[in-house]
This record gives sequence, C-alpha cells and structure tokens, in this order.
Amino acid sequence: MGMPEAGACILCDQSGGQLLAAAKQWRIIAADDDQGRAFPGFTRIIWQAHQREMSDLSTTEQGVLMGVVFEVEALMRQHLGPDKINLASLGNHVDHLHWHVIARWRDDSHFPAPIWASPDVSDAPASRHVVDPSALEGYWQALRERFA
Amino acid sequence: MGMPEAGACILCDQSGGQLLAAAKQWRIIAADDDQGRAFPGFTRIIWQAHQREMSDLSTTEQGVLMGVVFEVEALMRQHLGPDKINLASLGNHVDHLHWHVIARWRDDSHFPAPIWASPDVSDAPASRHVVDPSALEGYWQALRERFA
Repeated sequence: MGMPEAGACILCDQSGGQLLAAAKQWRIIAADDDQGRAFPGFTRIIWQAHQREMSDLSTTEQGVLMGVVFEVEALMRQHLGPDKINLASLGNHVDHLHWHVIARWRDDSHFPAPIWASPDVSDAPASRHVVDPSALEGYWQALRERFA
Repeated sequence: MGMPEAGACILCDQSGGQLLAAAKQWRIIAADDDQGRAFPGFTRIIWQAHQREMSDLSTTEQGVLMGVVFEVEALMRQHLGPDKINLASLGNHVDHLHWHVIARWRDDSHFPAPIWASPDVSDAPASRHVVDPSALEGYWQALRERFA
C-alpha cells in the first residue's frame, strides 16, 4: 500500500472497468470484475488525477466528484429500482480516489450485510434477486447519454 | 427494511452514539458500539431528517452534508494520522441517511479488507495498531470545537 511509484497505480494506468463516460476530472465505469458480476449495475466513479483522499481535493473538486456520484445514484434508482443504494470510497487496495455506487436488494446475496461481508448462505440462490437485463442495459445507456 | 413507520427509526429516536456536535440538518457522533470499539475514532455524520438516500436531498443539502463529512475526514487525518480513510453510506440495516468515517491502518484487524469483511486472522493481535488515547481525545475535542 502507500503512495505508489509513478506508473505503478492500476487506476492511473487502466480504465478500471468498462468505460461509460469520461471528462477531464472524472470517469465512470461499469465494474466488470467479480464484484460487478455479483452485483449487477455496480458502477464506479474514478477521479482522473492520482489523489488518495476526498480531503486532498479542493471544495470545488469535491463538489464536482460528488455531483457525479449522486447523479449516477439517481439514474441507478430510476432504471434499476433497488431497495437501497450503497456508496463507498475505501481505497485500501488501490489508493487512487474512486467511489462505488451499488444497487442492493433485500433478496440479494448479502443483504442486509455490506457486499464485503460473507454472503448470506441461509437463502437458496434460486430465490435471489435477478436484475432484468433490459433494465440494466437501459441504465448503462442512460449513463452514457447523461454524461456524454 | 423499507420505510419505517413513524417513530420506528432508531436514528430518529436516538442519537446513535456519543453526541459530539449537532446542527439543524446534521449531527456528529462518536460510535460507541462494537464497530466504534474495534475501530477507534469511528465517526458518524447523521442527517437529522429521515431521508433514505443522498439523491433524496437537494443539491444544497448534499453539499452541506458532504462538507461536514469531508471536514471530519480532514480532522481525523490531522489528529490520528491513519494510513487510509474509509467513507461509506450504506443504510441496509437503518435506512436513515448516515455516513461512516473510518480511520484505517495497515496493521489494523482487517486491512486491506473493508471493516465489514472477516478479520485478518493471520496477524497476531499484539502486532495490531494501537491508537494513542491522547490523540483520540484530541480528535474528539477538535470535532467538538470545530462544529460547536
């Protein structure tokens, strides 16, 4: 951990997922890793510059980044209708500022636990929430259009 | 889960921890539950009104709440010097808007995993980070003074 050497940060070097939109200060990606597969709609907003903490940004920059996060949240609610939104900026593995926006359902694999906890094995997988693929595609398309 | 009936929300009815500061729209508490004991300095900022999601607030309200969160983060860094800050708004158990501000150290019980994951049992507890009690008291006092 700690400050990576120049060129050693995966979010400086790679998009971090499927790129949906990008501006000078931020980009929005669809998570295409294990978390993204486990939690459909999992979206990340990544600050383009290598900064570690929100309090490393100016007040104006904080407002820009959170404005995008909250608009993503609003579109996620509109298109996917989750029971709850989870927001987090952790960065313990990759200390380059990024926000997780996660749609949660009462009958998902972990609810009400955070997604990082152990899954709820008392539920039969067949009873778990399935996100409608066309709603999901509508969500990604809405993000692309809003932030084009 | 879901919208609680009037009077059925624990964060409408109780402070949620040790109250450090309060304004009309928000309050700051020191977590005095299991999470607060496991992660010294664990601070929560609670929106006073019963709202569920950040996108239920106006842009102005979002800015007010996040401004407090980021000032708390800055004071936490200044007084406790953590290796990383973790921020999260989940609300799966209590769907009344609140933010977790958590100081993390490389040698804490879970790092680099999120605090909600299983603890890292490969470390001897004796080797784990200990937060200096006077630094912690200085942090709480700084919060009280800043937001008085």
